[in-house]
Amino acid sequence: MKKKTTIHDISKALKINSSTVSRALNNSPRVSQKTKDLIQKKAIELGYQKNILASNLRTNKTNTIGIIVPRISRTFFSSVISGIEETAYNAGYNVVIGQSLESFEREKELVSTLLSNRVDGLLISVSMGTTNYDHLSNFKTNGGPIVFFDRPITMLDTPSISIDDYEASYNATKHLIKNGCKNIVHFSGFQKIALYKRRTEGYVAALTDNDIPIRPEYILESQLSEADGIEMAKKVLKLPKVDGIYSSNDTAAISAMQHFKKNNIKIPDDIAIVGFNNDPISAAIEPNLTTINQPDVEMGIIASSLLIELIKKTIKTPSEHSKTLGTELIIRQSSQKL
Amino acid sequence: MKKKTTIHDISKALKINSSTVSRALNNSPRVSQKTKDLIQKKAIELGYQKNILASNLRTNKTNTIGIIVPRISRTFFSSVISGIEETAYNAGYNVVIGQSLESFEREKELVSTLLSNRVDGLLISVSMGTTNYDHLSNFKTNGGPIVFFDRPITMLDTPSISIDDYEASYNATKHLIKNGCKNIVHFSGFQKIALYKRRTEGYVAALTDNDIPIRPEYILESQLSEADGIEMAKKVLKLPKVDGIYSSNDTAAISAMQHFKKNNIKIPDDIAIVGFNNDPISAAIEPNLTTINQPDVEMGIIASSLLIELIKKTIKTPSEHSKTLGTELIIRQSSQKL
Repeated sequence: MKKKTTIHDISKALKINSSTVSRALNNSPRVSQKTKDLIQKKAIELGYQKNILASNLRTNKTNTIGIIVPRISRTFFSSVISGIEETAYNAGYNVVIGQSLESFEREKELVSTLLSNRVDGLLISVSMGTTNYDHLSNFKTNGGPIVFFDRPITMLDTPSISIDDYEASYNATKHLIKNGCKNIVHFSGFQKIALYKRRTEGYVAALTDNDIPIRPEYILESQLSEADGIEMAKKVLKLPKVDGIYSSNDTAAISAMQHFKKNNIKIPDDIAIVGFNNDPISAAIEPNLTTINQPDVEMGIIASSLLIELIKKTIKTPSEHSKTLGTELIIRQSSQKL
Repeated sequence: MKKKTTIHDISKALKINSSTVSRALNNSPRVSQKTKDLIQKKAIELGYQKNILASNLRTNKTNTIGIIVPRISRTFFSSVISGIEETAYNAGYNVVIGQSLESFEREKELVSTLLSNRVDGLLISVSMGTTNYDHLSNFKTNGGPIVFFDRPITMLDTPSISIDDYEASYNATKHLIKNGCKNIVHFSGFQKIALYKRRTEGYVAALTDNDIPIRPEYILESQLSEADGIEMAKKVLKLPKVDGIYSSNDTAAISAMQHFKKNNIKIPDDIAIVGFNNDPISAAIEPNLTTINQPDVEMGIIASSLLIELIKKTIKTPSEHSKTLGTELIIRQSSQKL
């Protein structure tokens, strides 16, 4: 039996890259008519015609991917989105974005909007307010595949791309201890979010491994907004002898720093600080903020490549493609006591 | 003849606010079944039934608004979007967002995606690469109304909500002159964008009014990215005796500042700097950056309220609703020479 002709064969025969071939066969407006004619002629010549038909038959597709994030204004999410868009665009998909603003209601409405827009698949970082996943199960049944990113969720046949939050927190806390901190406050997000829970666990483990007692009053929980950072800074100043802070994001770390600076608290000498996310502002503020860099763009690329494979059904066991990415502690001035 | 029953009458009779009444009558999932029953019963009782039918008949609506911006990661755009979303959400609309990344091609594809998603209307700040508006005319004909924001465009029956760029630039440049600057460089965006052209005109006018000659080599044109800021800073250091910079955005102003700081140029004593946008980073960097604050959230609220009125056809002369908003010069350390 003759081997099936693939896009790769046409690509080789014409010395045209395979994504262009694929686009031409899908009649994408991005390929010139001249190139399309050339490719379609070669496809027929090599016996690819049957697959073209199959592909047209198969596709009730819109070539659109939906993204839902808590907030587009967070640098981390806009960077993930840029990774998603590059990958999607190069594969011939457009991208529409919605933000839940951490609200379960809004997330449900967005999922239902994207469903009625017939997007081919969904990339989502669920809101802090989300309490069940029926809306996502419904999307999977009636819409298309889902890939979770950043905030991993356990759902049948649905992979998650996230970072190793435990390890990142452990390293950040250990770094503060190495720099002489003994009374370290932790700015935490809400513990019902798995990601924040694991960050707290990393903090607790680093203290325990270094024989530092865990004091529950040193773990401050909030949405980690700018205003929360100021509130938590005020609480820190009422606690005895705090000499370090590990914050689960840069936003809260930076507004706390600004509050401390106004109150003549010296950073890092009085209080050393480590943030999370490596927002651009962390490198601009003085002293520069030590923080954790996440592979945000890479996360977007991996998540969207995976989603596109799921849309194309080239993957049979989605859950096996979940991935945990490493992070990097970027040591700057805010944490290095003299 | 009996006066027509309005939503307001039902609202008053039941002491339930009118947006809830409106949602209930549109069978929104956001209103509980119990409240819906109550409202619908009262609506029939007061003779509102006929309007419900009319409303159902009228709507081939998706209750979704599309937004297209150049970049969601720019603080200005994410703030406008938050203003749009609040207004839209309260009026019962969901919002989907696309970013053009300043590319005409991407913008065209996004408009076509939103058109096939049957969004009810479009809010757009056009890309720097956009050279004609056929895609937008097409959307208007086959989709729904459009409101431009930030970057005004002249198009029949299509209003623009923007700021007074000329005045903002004039004030920024005058402020530098008042602080002793005589050789002021202008970081400009591309002149084919009306907004940047008007900012340059404001700069030129302020110099002229103060008898300072215009030197074309002092006007540097770029996309105003972080990298552009560094390149322009290098050019500034090769120009003779520059003592001030007025930049059309904070991004370029801040990366230029960082380059100057590395090269021991004192800000503001050697070179005073004014930016544009009031990005959060402008208040965090040292010295703090003097900048222009735009009413970004307000722009979003006004643009989306207007779009919703256009969708509902309650406005007959759209172009008359174009609006120019005022700005505010926020004076910080970077521009005040001793």
